[in-house]
Formats: sequence, C-alpha cells, structure tokens
Amino acid sequence: MRKISLRAIGRVHNSIRKIKREGWDSVVSEVILDKTFAEALEGVEEYSHLLVLFWLSRVRKAERKMKKIHPKSRQDLPLVGIFATRTQYRPNPIGLTLVKLLERKKNILKVRGLDALNGTPVIDIKPISPHQEFPKKKRVPKWYDELWRKLRK
Amino acid sequence: MRKISLRAIGRVHNSIRKIKREGWDSVVSEVILDKTFAEALEGVEEYSHLLVLFWLSRVRKAERKMKKIHPKSRQDLPLVGIFATRTQYRPNPIGLTLVKLLERKKNILKVRGLDALNGTPVIDIKPISPHQEFPKKKRVPKWYDELWRKLRK
Repeated sequence: MRKISLRAIGRVHNSIRKIKREGWDSVVSEVILDKTFAEALEGVEEYSHLLVLFWLSRVRKAERKMKKIHPKSRQDLPLVGIFATRTQYRPNPIGLTLVKLLERKKNILKVRGLDALNGTPVIDIKPISPHQEFPKKKRVPKWYDELWRKLRK
Repeated sequence: MRKISLRAIGRVHNSIRKIKREGWDSVVSEVILDKTFAEALEGVEEYSHLLVLFWLSRVRKAERKMKKIHPKSRQDLPLVGIFATRTQYRPNPIGLTLVKLLERKKNILKVRGLDALNGTPVIDIKPISPHQEFPKKKRVPKWYDELWRKLRK
C-alpha cells in the first residue's frame, strides 16, 4: 500500500524520561507547537478537553509487526488482537490520548494526563466532539473492566 | 521537523463517492484491512464502538496550510483556529471517527457512521476506552452546541 507522510507539528515537554505503564493521570505536560501554529490554536481554550495525537517514536520496526498481546503485558488477561487494545505495538504507532486542557499561551498548551515521554512528536490536536463521540450505550470486553478494576486497587 | 512515514493498513468500502457534509450517521461501510491483519482484529467484536483513524487523501497541499476556518464553512459561526475544530483542513489530515461496530468477519469490519469516502486509506483501528475518554464534566465552545442544534433541525 502507498506510503503516507506526516510532519510533526510540535513536541511534548515534561519531566518523564522513562517509559512507564501507570501514573500518567497526574502528569502535567506542555505541548509546544511550532510557532507558526499559534493562530491555528485560537479557540481551543474554550474546550475542557482535547485529543492529542502523537507519534510513538520509540516503537521499533519489529514491534510494529506484532499481531496479538496480553493487555498491559498481564498474563492474567487474555491474549487478544492488537486492534482490540490501545497498545503502542501497532503497525502505525500513533498515540491518541484525551487530556485536560489547563491553559493555552500562544503556541503552547498546558495539559494534564498526556501519557507521552518528553520529546515525543505531536502530529495533531483535535477538540472533543461530545455529540459524536460519547455514546450512551456502550459495550467493552470483560477483560477491559477487569483491567481497570485492578489498576484502581 | 522530521518526517514520519505511515502505511495504510486497509481501505474503506462504501457507496459514497462524493464529498458531503452531513448524513453520515446512517452510512454503513466496510473497513477492509489487509488479510495479514485478520489475527490482529481478534477480540474487537467485543466492543460496541471503535475509533477509526483514516487518511484524508483528497486534502490538497494548500489546504493543509490553513490556519483558521468557519466551522463547517458556516459564516454564521465564528472564525476559529483549525485545531479548535474537526475540519479536514489540517497540517496532517488524519480523520478520527467513532463508529458503531456491526460485525467482524476475519479482516473485514462492518461499521456504521464512518464519514469517509469509498477508497479512503485506513491507518489505525482503536477500541474505545471509556475509563479514559469519556469525561463526566466537559466544556465546549458556544458555537459547537449551536452548530449541533442547527444540524439537528
């Protein structure tokens, strides 16, 4: 299939240098876009939350070929297809995270909850769209709820 | 900034050949992934909804440089930065849409609500993650609610 070319529009700045699985909720990051994008951010401050799309630049080529995993590498959870999880091991390692927007200053967004290491390339910022994206009735696998019960203990 | 390379993992198949703004909710599409990804889809059928990431291949180079727009080209709504909207006119024209999953058969997902033209390259499939992505308290711009009130009339 045809190749698609993206360009980073900015980078994540925070204190996180090492990959970690948990404890991202409270992390405050700055998303520093290229200065030319300051104008393109006008109005984002009216949203409480944004979706940040970023490029998981540390994922290696071999890891992009994985087909199935245990969610969060937990052997107590079933082996499922990578598209049934949010693992970074995917053919196109794009991260997608909902963050709380704390502040915007020109080309810089201060956000909470972004699970990206310092220096991570950012590829898009999208506002939430509650009318389209928050379904009232939803269904998830058993393991998903089990995982979150365990994470919260 | 450094270039990032993606590869399409599949394509959208539906009856929609011409760009349209509205009426996507009821459109049923097939997302046909490369056959090698059938295994990687195992378990997605346990979700009611998925997020489909796709490449808006018709967006032209000049359109990727836009900084501000009127949402949905409506002059009655304010001019805002493109990152405050879900317009396709963005530096990296990645589409992100929540769809209802109707069925999976091997490498093929049958979905409802995907606002992508026939032939659109698909770059990722992510399951919903309600624990992380559905904030209870949220705030959106006035124009956003106004737009949806108008669209529903």
